[in-house]
Amino acid sequence: MRQRNEARRLDILHAAARVFRRRGIAAAGMREIAEEAGLSPGNLYHYFSGKDEILLFCQERTLERMQAAADAARGTAAERLHGVLRAHVHSMLDELEGATAHLDVEALPAPMRAQMIERRDAYERAVRAIVAEGMKRGEFARCDISLVTRAMLGALNWTARWYRPEGPQGADEIAETLSDYLVRGLAAAPSSAGARA
Amino acid sequence: MRQRNEARRLDILHAAARVFRRRGIAAAGMREIAEEAGLSPGNLYHYFSGKDEILLFCQERTLERMQAAADAARGTAAERLHGVLRAHVHSMLDELEGATAHLDVEALPAPMRAQMIERRDAYERAVRAIVAEGMKRGEFARCDISLVTRAMLGALNWTARWYRPEGPQGADEIAETLSDYLVRGLAAAPSSAGARA
Repeated sequence: MRQRNEARRLDILHAAARVFRRRGIAAAGMREIAEEAGLSPGNLYHYFSGKDEILLFCQERTLERMQAAADAARGTAAERLHGVLRAHVHSMLDELEGATAHLDVEALPAPMRAQMIERRDAYERAVRAIVAEGMKRGEFARCDISLVTRAMLGALNWTARWYRPEGPQGADEIAETLSDYLVRGLAAAPSSAGARA
Repeated sequence: MRQRNEARRLDILHAAARVFRRRGIAAAGMREIAEEAGLSPGNLYHYFSGKDEILLFCQERTLERMQAAADAARGTAAERLHGVLRAHVHSMLDELEGATAHLDVEALPAPMRAQMIERRDAYERAVRAIVAEGMKRGEFARCDISLVTRAMLGALNWTARWYRPEGPQGADEIAETLSDYLVRGLAAAPSSAGARA
C-alpha cells in the first residue's frame, strides 16, 4: 500500500516536472499537473497538498541520492571524488525532468527553502571534505577548496541546462568525461603547460 | 545626446535587474521597473518598448563583453583560454544584477531568443576553438572538446548563483582561482593521481 503510494507520487513528480519545464515553476498550476498526470485535481491533492510539496519532494529525492553517493564513497580522495561527481551527474540527468526543479530552491516557500539549503550545504560540505583530504594527503594540489568545489558542482549542475536525452551522448559518457576533467584539475604536480597567464 | 541616452538605458538596466532578482523575471512588471529606476512609466517606455527589450539589452551587453575577450585573446592556448575564462567571470560578477537575467534566455520571446542563442553559440564556438587548438598543439590533453567547454562555462555561469558582493572574495580572486583550476584540468601529461576510479 505504502509502496503503491510512493510509486504514484513518483509518477506525479515526473508529470509535474514536465509541466515545470514547459511552463516555468511559477506559472505551473495544480490543475495542469493533475491533467498531465491523468488524475482529477481532487485525486492529486490526495498525494500532495500543493505545488510546493511536489517541488520539495523533487529536491529531496535528488539531494538524497547525491548525499548517499558521498556517504558511500571509498578509495583515494581522487577515486571518491570521481565517484561523487559521477553520481551527481546521474542524479541530474537520469531524472532530468526533475533536475530543473531541483535547482530552483528559490521557488520554495521560506521554511521549506531553509530546510533544503541546510541539506544542500551538508552535501557541499561532504564534497569539500574530500577535496580537503586529498590536499592534505598530497594527492591534490593546494587550492581554494571552497571555490573549486563550487566550480565542480556548478559545472555539473549546468548539465541540466543543456542536456537533451535525444542528444549524441548519454548520461554515462557525460558523467565520466566531466568527472575525469574536474578531478584532473585538482591533481598535484600539474604539468607546466602555462595555465597561469 | 546618444551617450546620455545610453547612460540612462544602463541605469534602467540596473534597476530592472534588481527587480528581476527580487521578483523573478516572469513576475517583474514595467511599472515596478519604472519605480525602481525613479521614472514615470511613460518615461520608461521612451527608453525601452517593454520588459523583453530590457532583457535583450542586458543579455547582449554581457555577451558582447565575453565575445570581445575571446576576440582579443593572445598567447598560448592556455594563456588565451585563461584570459577568456577570467573575462567571463568578470562579465558575470561585475554587473551581477544583470547576470541572472543574462542567463535566462528562455525568458525572451521566440525571435529575440533565436538571435541570442545564435550569438551565444558563436561565443561557445570561440572558446571551443581555443581548446581544440591547445589539443592540436599538444598543450592540452585529448578530451571531448564540446563537453569540457560546457563544463568550464557552466562552472563560471554558476558563479552568478552563489556570488555575494559582500562575501569574502572579490570578482578578481574568484576569476583567477576558477580559471587556474579549469585550465589546469586540460593540461597535457597530468599527474597519475588516479583520477579514473
